[in-house]
Amino acid sequence: MPVIRQSVGAARQRQFVHILRSTRTCSSEMAPSLADLQDLAHKLRIHSINSTSAAGSGHPTSCASIAEIMSVLFFKTMKLDLKSPIHPSSDRFILSKGHAAPILYAAWAEAGLFPTSELLNLRKFGNDLEGHPTPRLNFIDVGTGSLGQGLSVGCGMAYVGKYYDKASYRVYVLIGDGESAEGSIWEALNFASHYKLDNLVVIFDVNRLGQSEPTCLQHDMETYRKRVDSFGFNAVVVDGHDVGELSKAFDGAAATKGKPTAIIAKTYKGKHFPNIEDLENWHGKPLGAVGKDIVQHLTGLIKNKNISLKPNGIVDDSPKVNINNICLTSPPDYKPDAKVATRVAYGTAIAKLGKNNARVIALDGDTKNSTYSEKIKTASVEQYIECFIAEQNLVGVGMGATCRNRTVAFVSTFATFFTRAFDQIRMGAISQSNLNFVGSHCGVSIGEDGPSQMGLEDIALFRSIPGSTVFYPSDAVSTERAIELAANTKGICYIRTSRPNTPIVYESSTKFEIGKSNVLRQSSSDKLLIVSGGVTLHEAIIAQQQLAQQGFNVRVMDLFTIKPLDIKGLQQNATACGGNVLVVEDHYHEGGIGEAVSAALAGQLKKFIHIAVTDVPRSGPPEVLLGHYKLDAKGIVDAIKTQLQ
Amino acid sequence: MPVIRQSVGAARQRQFVHILRSTRTCSSEMAPSLADLQDLAHKLRIHSINSTSAAGSGHPTSCASIAEIMSVLFFKTMKLDLKSPIHPSSDRFILSKGHAAPILYAAWAEAGLFPTSELLNLRKFGNDLEGHPTPRLNFIDVGTGSLGQGLSVGCGMAYVGKYYDKASYRVYVLIGDGESAEGSIWEALNFASHYKLDNLVVIFDVNRLGQSEPTCLQHDMETYRKRVDSFGFNAVVVDGHDVGELSKAFDGAAATKGKPTAIIAKTYKGKHFPNIEDLENWHGKPLGAVGKDIVQHLTGLIKNKNISLKPNGIVDDSPKVNINNICLTSPPDYKPDAKVATRVAYGTAIAKLGKNNARVIALDGDTKNSTYSEKIKTASVEQYIECFIAEQNLVGVGMGATCRNRTVAFVSTFATFFTRAFDQIRMGAISQSNLNFVGSHCGVSIGEDGPSQMGLEDIALFRSIPGSTVFYPSDAVSTERAIELAANTKGICYIRTSRPNTPIVYESSTKFEIGKSNVLRQSSSDKLLIVSGGVTLHEAIIAQQQLAQQGFNVRVMDLFTIKPLDIKGLQQNATACGGNVLVVEDHYHEGGIGEAVSAALAGQLKKFIHIAVTDVPRSGPPEVLLGHYKLDAKGIVDAIKTQLQ
Repeated sequence: MPVIRQSVGAARQRQFVHILRSTRTCSSEMAPSLADLQDLAHKLRIHSINSTSAAGSGHPTSCASIAEIMSVLFFKTMKLDLKSPIHPSSDRFILSKGHAAPILYAAWAEAGLFPTSELLNLRKFGNDLEGHPTPRLNFIDVGTGSLGQGLSVGCGMAYVGKYYDKASYRVYVLIGDGESAEGSIWEALNFASHYKLDNLVVIFDVNRLGQSEPTCLQHDMETYRKRVDSFGFNAVVVDGHDVGELSKAFDGAAATKGKPTAIIAKTYKGKHFPNIEDLENWHGKPLGAVGKDIVQHLTGLIKNKNISLKPNGIVDDSPKVNINNICLTSPPDYKPDAKVATRVAYGTAIAKLGKNNARVIALDGDTKNSTYSEKIKTASVEQYIECFIAEQNLVGVGMGATCRNRTVAFVSTFATFFTRAFDQIRMGAISQSNLNFVGSHCGVSIGEDGPSQMGLEDIALFRSIPGSTVFYPSDAVSTERAIELAANTKGICYIRTSRPNTPIVYESSTKFEIGKSNVLRQSSSDKLLIVSGGVTLHEAIIAQQQLAQQGFNVRVMDLFTIKPLDIKGLQQNATACGGNVLVVEDHYHEGGIGEAVSAALAGQLKKFIHIAVTDVPRSGPPEVLLGHYKLDAKGIVDAIKTQLQ
Repeated sequence: MPVIRQSVGAARQRQFVHILRSTRTCSSEMAPSLADLQDLAHKLRIHSINSTSAAGSGHPTSCASIAEIMSVLFFKTMKLDLKSPIHPSSDRFILSKGHAAPILYAAWAEAGLFPTSELLNLRKFGNDLEGHPTPRLNFIDVGTGSLGQGLSVGCGMAYVGKYYDKASYRVYVLIGDGESAEGSIWEALNFASHYKLDNLVVIFDVNRLGQSEPTCLQHDMETYRKRVDSFGFNAVVVDGHDVGELSKAFDGAAATKGKPTAIIAKTYKGKHFPNIEDLENWHGKPLGAVGKDIVQHLTGLIKNKNISLKPNGIVDDSPKVNINNICLTSPPDYKPDAKVATRVAYGTAIAKLGKNNARVIALDGDTKNSTYSEKIKTASVEQYIECFIAEQNLVGVGMGATCRNRTVAFVSTFATFFTRAFDQIRMGAISQSNLNFVGSHCGVSIGEDGPSQMGLEDIALFRSIPGSTVFYPSDAVSTERAIELAANTKGICYIRTSRPNTPIVYESSTKFEIGKSNVLRQSSSDKLLIVSGGVTLHEAIIAQQQLAQQGFNVRVMDLFTIKPLDIKGLQQNATACGGNVLVVEDHYHEGGIGEAVSAALAGQLKKFIHIAVTDVPRSGPPEVLLGHYKLDAKGIVDAIKTQLQ
């Protein structure tokens, strides 16, 4: 099997070779018998044992508990396209308990997507059959493995399916009982019922055992049912090893309108593994010496040794979608002497992009009147998804909404509240998601609300995401262009916006590029380069004027993107300024602009001055706080005078 | 009022001046009448209006919905000590909806802790009555303002009260209905009922309105009741503006054994504010011009204009606790040729510390057999708290357990899963928490499980926390000492541990200090300084040997703590090596060791080489992955040869 290495953010085209071995067609109209489905389940168990044994690691017992669920889903219930596994019209399946990857790979192999012999390359370096699923495989939408995240993604897919695509595909999410302790699951359940996502089915694999001990609820099925029912689901408890009960439950889900369905399956970890089933201390371990005997035992359980089933074919009723070349419907339009907050400019821009393309959407967590994402809702209510105060689910829904290139999504809240979803954002990079984040209320310049509301680690967070693009626009013009660029950029994009009104520094016609800074003030005798962005850039401009009046010329650079950095521009201008550089930023010292710049210019710096926030701030007026942390013009001038002049 | 500025991690001694004005004693035995409580509620409303009007910002309508709840809690139900507001035996109160801070401040002022006139300094720079509560105030345990976090902290306090202190104090957590969409709330509810925390009361303020629109469930009280009941609570719906109903409900909670109680209060945002009550678009706004009339209206509702009530006094039955000078019961003991994973050494160390002091505890999220926190459980089951797969609650419970210096807590999981709780950790710094985090499975060296399980941004995360201490021990000896140092260090401590077995490089008698690096290999003719830690340090040592054999001497430094950095040691050794520095780290490029070192040495570097992980890794054997990212000895040698020699 050829290995396809994809850089994050690269076009989502996969060339995973698939070999169709079927005797039946993909869209067989003959439903499989229950005996067939049971046989197939055992085959999946055997593959899971053999592949993890070959790898010398993995989670065969976690696969065994879901063998019947996988068999019924893949060979009876779901509609799939083997020629194009992530076809816009095919059903979606997310294995939220990603450590059961071997049985997911086995199901696709048994379906005919690739040879089952390939399963024995599980977890080998260079092979795409990794320890946990990632979209390096052509049948995976999102990476899983950090628990509790799959359902939110499924909610995003189901929302798009029901309200945007208005298509017949359905979304299935399989979650473990251990991971159902994650709060993100309950955020997602609440979202799914609120929006009546009756095209969504959640399967709880209640196998009683976590990694290191039994789960909280073990096999208390009635409590699971009560909880999920109270969250607005059609909640059905089944024997998760009974293919007949499972089939009926999935049929029932399809017939249930106005609410999503949860199938709560009572299962056993290591089911049909003698002396292992339902026992502790077997999580995440290949079966070792006993594996062979257990495979023999399972083989004995299979009635039809030649069993081979194919998934149902798809109903191709999804609309064609074009999300290329998203543009502002009109250029930025501000008076030169206007003062506009960059968060407001975000609202203006997202409304323009939404007008340009109906697949541009915004999502927010009940802060839309602060982030100004409300502007797209005002313009076109259906292009806005309210996710309420649940940031993990907000990000997951955004990720799901962008899968299979169905939408261009912008997720907004206060910059600091993205810390709540750092794990989801991290998994977004592994998932090769194309998702845009807009964080308002960055820095101490938000003022009186105090430190809990101040984004002071957001640049550090988003810079650490592989392949990310981090914008920090300094005025309304550059903000609108940053939003437009982000809409057309692959991977994770972050745009940092500010609360205070700030001057316009760019003409409306200015062109912006990712990785291209702009020098706003310069002379032929500059002795220092000031690098900044956002609110502090305007302070730097004032400082430059004051210093120039005193005969000391400095250069002022607006980075525009913090990642990628304009390394060439930085080097040229730092050199022109004698190797003296000052970075001023409304962010903590660690992981922000200062460290990015000093690392990029390491070896070329003569003097480096870094002004940033040093400790937990307190409430106060923005200008007082900027002054307290010496982030204002006076602080900049003083730092230069004491450290350089 | 004197302003006390506290550095994060400083001793938790507060000198907030309080003036007792009471005519009644603090421990009045005369219960207030319902009329008194209602009058007091209106007084609290008036204070909330006046203070936010004076500040020109704030959330008076969010205060108004909880006025009766606050009145009953503070003046009828809770047992408080005005002389020592966070006395170990007093009841705990957490305002999880921190934006209602003005009414919390008003309650304490009315109780007599400080003059009510001080309330008019709300949100002024330098005043501790900030926009959201922080422990700069002597009556606040933890900062709130990022929603959905208070209940987990309350769970930690209640767990300690019930199982460690075995004292009569009770824990009250007031949460908003908007924030009840946060999954962390449901993680905490699950935890509280699992551990039968009948000393915990959660009050849901169901005021129907979020920030930007109505909440999901609005006033659907029955759905709230069903949900909370299904999560194992004694769930009681009350009229949240009826002081009699509230009083009874709190009495009922105190009489309920074996399960926690939730009081689900139907309230109205802006209650008793004519033309504002229950209306949208009044979130987070002072009342402006209409404020005066509303104060007059509220004054008219007060029957006894001279009303003054005092809280009940405490029952002082908490044990004395000493958590100073925590020591390893025996020094690290490893054979020089042993190979031991630092995660295992963590387990050994935490068990030793636990033996030294019964108030040393460990908490984990069902990874205890991977992080080795299970070693303290094996030694002493009650010193371990299983928090299941819910990392946000795990961190919150840890934070609650350490409040009022009741325990020394170590929270462990895979390093990368702390991203799930970044917001809680961030709030931990604002809360001046003394809490220790141990992250195992860092870097690509974990191998086959793949990128979702690899901690590659954990250093960036923990470095960004104000006042944090970040340890990255390289062998078992230094790990044990890092754990011991962390136990005695204020603020947020993070210890990064690794999965593979690695050599012992230190003698058992070695002394370690925070901010003090160790040079492990050096000569008088070193041409480059290699700075590292953890798995890659051992690769650096091999590289040094290989290079030395080729006549090229390099120096190898083990940082021990990444924050604070040993800047002096770095400067001296970098200078001794001609300003040539190489950092190799099993972490992403951004925010890790390389950026910390290059920022610290900016202006003093001649050549800087940075080897780190550049993109999303894949599954594979640890040594293959280290080789792929050039983090191994060969990669280090090659980098030096191509870039320096």
